[in-house]
Amino acid sequence: MKNFTSVKDVEDPVALVQKALALKANPFNPDFARGKKVGLIFLNPSLRTRLSSQIAVQNLGAEAIVLDIGKDGWALEFEDGVKMNGSKAEHIKEAAGVMGQYFDVLGVRTFPELKDRELDYSEQLLNAFIKYSGLPVVSLESATLHPLQSLADWMTIAEHWDKKERPKVVLTWAPHVKALPQAVPNSFVEWMKAAPVDLTITHPEGYELAGQFAESVPVEYNQARALEGADFVYVKNWSSYHQYGQILNQDESWSFGSEQLALTNNAKVMHCLPVRRGLVIKDEILDGPNAIHLQQAKNRIYSAQAVFAELLG
Amino acid sequence: MKNFTSVKDVEDPVALVQKALALKANPFNPDFARGKKVGLIFLNPSLRTRLSSQIAVQNLGAEAIVLDIGKDGWALEFEDGVKMNGSKAEHIKEAAGVMGQYFDVLGVRTFPELKDRELDYSEQLLNAFIKYSGLPVVSLESATLHPLQSLADWMTIAEHWDKKERPKVVLTWAPHVKALPQAVPNSFVEWMKAAPVDLTITHPEGYELAGQFAESVPVEYNQARALEGADFVYVKNWSSYHQYGQILNQDESWSFGSEQLALTNNAKVMHCLPVRRGLVIKDEILDGPNAIHLQQAKNRIYSAQAVFAELLG
Amino acid sequence: MKNFTSVKDVEDPVALVQKALALKANPFNPDFARGKKVGLIFLNPSLRTRLSSQIAVQNLGAEAIVLDIGKDGWALEFEDGVKMNGSKAEHIKEAAGVMGQYFDVLGVRTFPELKDRELDYSEQLLNAFIKYSGLPVVSLESATLHPLQSLADWMTIAEHWDKKERPKVVLTWAPHVKALPQAVPNSFVEWMKAAPVDLTITHPEGYELAGQFAESVPVEYNQARALEGADFVYVKNWSSYHQYGQILNQDESWSFGSEQLALTNNAKVMHCLPVRRGLVIKDEILDGPNAIHLQQAKNRIYSAQAVFAELLG
Repeated sequence: MKNFTSVKDVEDPVALVQKALALKANPFNPDFARGKKVGLIFLNPSLRTRLSSQIAVQNLGAEAIVLDIGKDGWALEFEDGVKMNGSKAEHIKEAAGVMGQYFDVLGVRTFPELKDRELDYSEQLLNAFIKYSGLPVVSLESATLHPLQSLADWMTIAEHWDKKERPKVVLTWAPHVKALPQAVPNSFVEWMKAAPVDLTITHPEGYELAGQFAESVPVEYNQARALEGADFVYVKNWSSYHQYGQILNQDESWSFGSEQLALTNNAKVMHCLPVRRGLVIKDEILDGPNAIHLQQAKNRIYSAQAVFAELLG
Repeated sequence: MKNFTSVKDVEDPVALVQKALALKANPFNPDFARGKKVGLIFLNPSLRTRLSSQIAVQNLGAEAIVLDIGKDGWALEFEDGVKMNGSKAEHIKEAAGVMGQYFDVLGVRTFPELKDRELDYSEQLLNAFIKYSGLPVVSLESATLHPLQSLADWMTIAEHWDKKERPKVVLTWAPHVKALPQAVPNSFVEWMKAAPVDLTITHPEGYELAGQFAESVPVEYNQARALEGADFVYVKNWSSYHQYGQILNQDESWSFGSEQLALTNNAKVMHCLPVRRGLVIKDEILDGPNAIHLQQAKNRIYSAQAVFAELLG
Repeated sequence: MKNFTSVKDVEDPVALVQKALALKANPFNPDFARGKKVGLIFLNPSLRTRLSSQIAVQNLGAEAIVLDIGKDGWALEFEDGVKMNGSKAEHIKEAAGVMGQYFDVLGVRTFPELKDRELDYSEQLLNAFIKYSGLPVVSLESATLHPLQSLADWMTIAEHWDKKERPKVVLTWAPHVKALPQAVPNSFVEWMKAAPVDLTITHPEGYELAGQFAESVPVEYNQARALEGADFVYVKNWSSYHQYGQILNQDESWSFGSEQLALTNNAKVMHCLPVRRGLVIKDEILDGPNAIHLQQAKNRIYSAQAVFAELLG
């Protein structure tokens, strides 16, 4: 594994899940990467990713240094060949180039602007860090994917499923007041296609995910029908890919509550957090026995630790 | 000790003071809590608390991770049962629930809004972290109390007093330009009631502290009379409890200077910091031999270390 | 060495360069300063200095704690004897006094306001930290000097020069859109005067540096003539010292490009970063084989490590 930005970077995802579960059982390995340095660069706010990746790095005995670009540092220029006479103080070539001299591995968090689809889906920012740092780079969520989350999601499903047959996993859209990235659903779909599960996606028309991730995955526009017999339901809002970045509807009948749960095979209910209670998922679910969102969050430590261990080892 | 939010959480405060003083003599114990993680969550700015609690955790060999909610993270919802369609991105149930998965002990800093007394004195925020994290929680100052400060204050008095008789300790109000919480005076009173000292409170009328903390402590409205024979004077501004959050007067005759000091038994002068020079305490005192405010600040490391040691041990 | 704020604080600069180069060859010394604490105080944003000084401290086995004053803390009062009834929450006497109790060494980053030359050149802020902390203080760039940068610059020149004769080093002004401090050029000149090099300064009229640093160094107002035969060219913008803080011109013929490089002895091109591409230095240079700016940046770790090692040892 050279970088960790997508399931495509992972030769054997099943083995990586097993490794993460093994680290969960025995997380503290302070001699593993002693003296190694990991830079954790945030261009956007973060709670779980910030905390879990620091803990993961510490568990391996390496040193994590967090940098909030734009807050601790300054705004970066990503365009090539410009005369920098505006407000951007430094070019990514130098910023990432310097980080490449300082660290052994780099974690980078970027967000899409949700205005220009071509730009967002080109992963300009993440790719610039890879190109100019010369280091192994771990996506701490990018414009289009969130692989550390998906790896933790897979771990969580594995912990709840020991049957031989494949579980039915449903990814369902839910309403939200803000336009959110497609990164988590894109990524979940990408990883679940590699996992021993049967995946169905359900959402209102117009919320189809990008073909490069969702192709070959069945879409059922009727949520109730999609949920029938589900063993795991992943609830998540995203904005439209085709009418890029738009909120097409906020139909609260898609909020996930006990009515929806009743349609499933007593499904475990998943969310990547942060979750808007009462809007995306109802309190009765989040406070009930089917919710496993906090377990997903805990597994973020070990998904990160498995990946950093690969890249620092 | 399950949490550390008040002197009431401490079975034997005298023993805790002794423990803190012993740690001051020998602070560096890197094997004590190796591999343990402490989350330090700040909902408000901080200098001493931020630095001293990081140092305390490091001295015990544990890892401290600082998170500035609202700056590193996002605004939290504390109300139960709301539909989260406003600006709050995450509910405390999930935020604290996740931290409960990531850390062994949590330190939390909150402030009162000084608008709704019932709300502030309910300690809604601190209690929500306790309830939903499931972890031992250390108050790094809450809406109504600042126990790590009071423990450090007690240590400082103990270091300056080896006589058999009880010292006279006076808590005096002083003017300020901003409306400040009652947390430090409430807490000082609460701890001094458990300490082998004779405590008097002095302030202009209208600044009476909440009965739950100050009851049974003599109040003397005449500052000069209160200061007579004092061995220690704790100077501090606070806003009104009864006309909640109000500044009732800014009478600068209450500023603590050499005139006031002359009335005491050559008292040591204390303040929790930050202190407004020339307004709360005059330069002649802060720059003179009676001021022990920097010693109080140093003791913040060891009061925190004693508490974290209890909870991590 | 008591503090590190200028080349004047260093008894033997050549030996310090050698020490830094030795640390670069063998940076990881986790037992050197175990249990020691270094406070890194930023009154201004920083990328390289923030990262490199944290790494330097970690490499020595000490603990670095970063504090962003004004962001993590609050605005400080530096004036003596004022009644603090404005917006400043704490006086430097207490803020630095407390840090003096918490740390073994302090790193401090300040910037000039570029309004009042007397004030900036008095180094009021840096000197207040020295005076009131009572600790060894390392300048992480001050109003008028940037000695860690200059030490790294010297290391970089030494790594590229093994001839007996002295290299010709040219410091050339370049245009910029913002008024920048004179700290980097002042400091470079100060250190190069102590180094075995021949230094020439070139800039448009009006950009003469302060006599206390630049006296005895030849100034050539014709950039082309200055660059003739140069072995190293340090490109940097600064605002006027004599018309203090002013931008006198933005003449882009001073931008450093291949035309300028052609005049030199195939010079290595240096910059302290961040650099405005296309304005200060052209892409053709920064992306070409003569640029050594990333090597300078890497050496920031070891210049800091050498200095912290001296002060923690």
